[in-house]
Amino acid sequence: MTRYATLAAILSQRIEQGLYSAGERLPSIRALSLEHTVSISTVQQAYRLLEEKRLVEPRAKSGYFVRNQPLRAELPTVTRPVQRPVEISQWEQVLDIVRSPPRDDLLQLGRGMPDITEPTLQPLLKALSNVGRHGDLRSLRYDSIQGVFGLREQIARLMLDSGCQLDAEQLIVTTGCHEALSTGLRAVCQPGDIVAVDSPCYHGTMQTLKGLGMKALEIPTDPLTGISLEALEMALEQWPIKMILLTPNCNNPLGYIMPEARKKRLLTLAQRYDVAIIEDDVYGDLAYSYPRPRTIKSFDDDGRVLLCSSFSKTLATGLRIGWIAPGRYLERVLHMKYIGSGLTATQPQLALVEFIRHGHYLQHLRRMRQRYQQNRDLMTQWIGQYFPANVRVSQPRGGFMLWIELYEDFDTLRLNRNLENQGVQVAVGSIFSASGKYRNCMRINYAPKLTAEIELAIKKVGTAINQLMEANSATAEECLPGQ
Amino acid sequence: MTRYATLAAILSQRIEQGLYSAGERLPSIRALSLEHTVSISTVQQAYRLLEEKRLVEPRAKSGYFVRNQPLRAELPTVTRPVQRPVEISQWEQVLDIVRSPPRDDLLQLGRGMPDITEPTLQPLLKALSNVGRHGDLRSLRYDSIQGVFGLREQIARLMLDSGCQLDAEQLIVTTGCHEALSTGLRAVCQPGDIVAVDSPCYHGTMQTLKGLGMKALEIPTDPLTGISLEALEMALEQWPIKMILLTPNCNNPLGYIMPEARKKRLLTLAQRYDVAIIEDDVYGDLAYSYPRPRTIKSFDDDGRVLLCSSFSKTLATGLRIGWIAPGRYLERVLHMKYIGSGLTATQPQLALVEFIRHGHYLQHLRRMRQRYQQNRDLMTQWIGQYFPANVRVSQPRGGFMLWIELYEDFDTLRLNRNLENQGVQVAVGSIFSASGKYRNCMRINYAPKLTAEIELAIKKVGTAINQLMEANSATAEECLPGQ
Ligand SMILES: Cc1ncc(COP(=O)(O)O)c(C=O)c1O
Ligand SMILES: Cc1ncc(COP(=O)(O)O)c(C=O)c1O
Repeated sequence: MTRYATLAAILSQRIEQGLYSAGERLPSIRALSLEHTVSISTVQQAYRLLEEKRLVEPRAKSGYFVRNQPLRAELPTVTRPVQRPVEISQWEQVLDIVRSPPRDDLLQLGRGMPDITEPTLQPLLKALSNVGRHGDLRSLRYDSIQGVFGLREQIARLMLDSGCQLDAEQLIVTTGCHEALSTGLRAVCQPGDIVAVDSPCYHGTMQTLKGLGMKALEIPTDPLTGISLEALEMALEQWPIKMILLTPNCNNPLGYIMPEARKKRLLTLAQRYDVAIIEDDVYGDLAYSYPRPRTIKSFDDDGRVLLCSSFSKTLATGLRIGWIAPGRYLERVLHMKYIGSGLTATQPQLALVEFIRHGHYLQHLRRMRQRYQQNRDLMTQWIGQYFPANVRVSQPRGGFMLWIELYEDFDTLRLNRNLENQGVQVAVGSIFSASGKYRNCMRINYAPKLTAEIELAIKKVGTAINQLMEANSATAEECLPGQ
Repeated sequence: MTRYATLAAILSQRIEQGLYSAGERLPSIRALSLEHTVSISTVQQAYRLLEEKRLVEPRAKSGYFVRNQPLRAELPTVTRPVQRPVEISQWEQVLDIVRSPPRDDLLQLGRGMPDITEPTLQPLLKALSNVGRHGDLRSLRYDSIQGVFGLREQIARLMLDSGCQLDAEQLIVTTGCHEALSTGLRAVCQPGDIVAVDSPCYHGTMQTLKGLGMKALEIPTDPLTGISLEALEMALEQWPIKMILLTPNCNNPLGYIMPEARKKRLLTLAQRYDVAIIEDDVYGDLAYSYPRPRTIKSFDDDGRVLLCSSFSKTLATGLRIGWIAPGRYLERVLHMKYIGSGLTATQPQLALVEFIRHGHYLQHLRRMRQRYQQNRDLMTQWIGQYFPANVRVSQPRGGFMLWIELYEDFDTLRLNRNLENQGVQVAVGSIFSASGKYRNCMRINYAPKLTAEIELAIKKVGTAINQLMEANSATAEECLPGQ
């Protein structure tokens, strides 16, 4: 990053964190130049950047001010899931989503797909297409079950940004983050074992627990700081938990980044109760703040954290290349990978080596972080505009998902049914819970270019919500005492 | 196939089956022309083809004769594995093989890789490279968890050749045959369940059973006709078997094709005892006879057969595209796939649609079948030449593997250690058994172009075997009674 971009990032983070609030005057150009020992013109450039991002506005003769951000909706409530290990249900709803290929006649606002239309992704298509050129047969061969060495080197290098100092030998390339999670779970736990999870939790993880015959113990989670350590400790005291599985960075679906201090405390807890941790970092590189947040893995000194990730969210879902840094469980994970899908395809691995090596990955990341942050703001604004006033909305710090909580009796399954013939679909909240909680919540993806068509779709969802609420209160009135 | 090629195939099959034996006179050109209602010149062309293949030789004025084939080694013995369900060992040896990427300094005669250097495979590289051209983003997207519909259509069409009439909805694309086997097993069986397998059996399957906590019951197997139905029936009577898992066509490692009548009887047995069957057909398309052998699946009328296959052996190992036709277990298999690796990469699927649609798959198959058959004969000849006289050698009817049985006390692990500094490695027999049997056996891959370098390697293996045998008998003498 250039100096001015770094400075702009620092300032925007402070605004984000509320250090400077809306309408407040920002430090003068001179003051900043002294504080950060940069030139006047660097500060000016930084402010210009923030202006473009619509975060600050200049006022004649009095300097820069924090822009009035659209009024924020309230945050979702701290979750209160069932307080005992349960078997997971909801497979039918998940199958419904994952079975259908992308459809032209349906706007799937709920699917976890990144935007793949940015020009910064074009070099990836080129790299994929180049691999097999000139009769190069490497892409048709088996490589090691651990993955192409050169790719593991590149991944190890990228992971430095999250504070992890690993080498290629400590990594295994997987078929997406799914396989990372699945092999990690199977390496540590047996069917019947209890796994503590943040809640709400990505439905793929829930279904994996189900399919492996494990039980989920959902831990209450705060929409800004993540899994409740207090509740987790109580659970560790009470149940024979084998593993803690969570997504602390740019959580799906809530979007929070767990503060560093809490990450450390969680690790200490895990050490005290001697349980392993699966850390899903699949959105970690998409944090809007710079430098990106550290992983729990980066504090791990006894190999109990299995870090899982992939290029599915940062680059493209169709690649199916992920990785796991399994700590002390490396060999067991290798076995689980061998028996699950065998080796991972060679060609996309080779293409990724080229793509990353030439700096395209970091360039694309920079672009997407900025885009997603802008989209978050616009989508939040639309929700405020078209949804009922009392909805609660998450404030994601990275990634591209918004979690929306409606009043307690609301049924998003019914909402989706009503939206069906309007060509719109959201992700229903219940698939993010082992026990089918969060029926009154939904997840909306703001990765794509936010076109007028999408605005219209959001409007349709808002209207449908209002209709359902009216119908409901009408029924409620009909049921008044005395009837 | 042209008429003459068809006729040649029929004749060579008859020779293969011993209908015409070495030195015997073959039917006259006129007789064949009448029998098959083809022209004289077609028969002449057919004989010329067989001559090129060194199967027949013309003798002046007396017609064509079956060539004296090099004296055949004896077949491996019918296997006698342990007669109870066992947990699988041998992971370390398998890991050794699958962990290392292809090495230039080591000739791995044991790995299951097809030859990928034939020009008929070039269109695949081109198809892979074409997918992402012109900014086409389909390859970066998720598709359905069931796989790209167009590819499933093409696979369904190809499966007609094995007698299977399925449609795209009954197929699931998988990450290699590994994932097909693994999801199939998990869809039907629980940890602790007993699975009956042909023995020897592909080590990947063995390790899958191990990793899933299932027990293998190894059934004696005949090197020409496959799994013993008599032994299988006894086992079904005696144990609560949940599943029969076998590779009836071009078996790895034995190379046999199970006769059709036995396939039907096996299915009847499975119906009687109400167990499911996993049929691994990964080499089925590489049978040397035409038309290719039928699958057990093709006789299945109540959806109990889960057919598993992939393009790893017919095309290229690095692709990682396979499929499963799971019969009545489709939805369970989908769930297991979703939790194991999620969706399968899109780009290779799209490339394969193009490759198959343009006829390149069948063209490549024709080429490879012929090549592998020739290689089998040459490799068998080399074994006869360089190995001790009393080794037993399989007579593969398809695929590209030779199974070699040495005298009972021989230790192929030791052999491999001795070969290490000579840059040669074979696959040790023990990894093909749940209980570590077959230490006196090894598998050799004859897929690659059989160059002088490979001949030299075989010679080295032969010499090393002889040395070990001499050392052994010396020790045996030293240990004579009285010492
Ligand atoms: C939190 C989380 N983990 C894992 C995954 C799966 O990633 P992949 O597509 O790489 O298997 C997703 C994707 O939806 C996710 O949101
Ligand atoms: C009998 C058999 N089944 C399955 C496989 C695995 O196939 P894939 O590489 O497609 O996972 C092999 C490969 O070695 C095999 O020999």
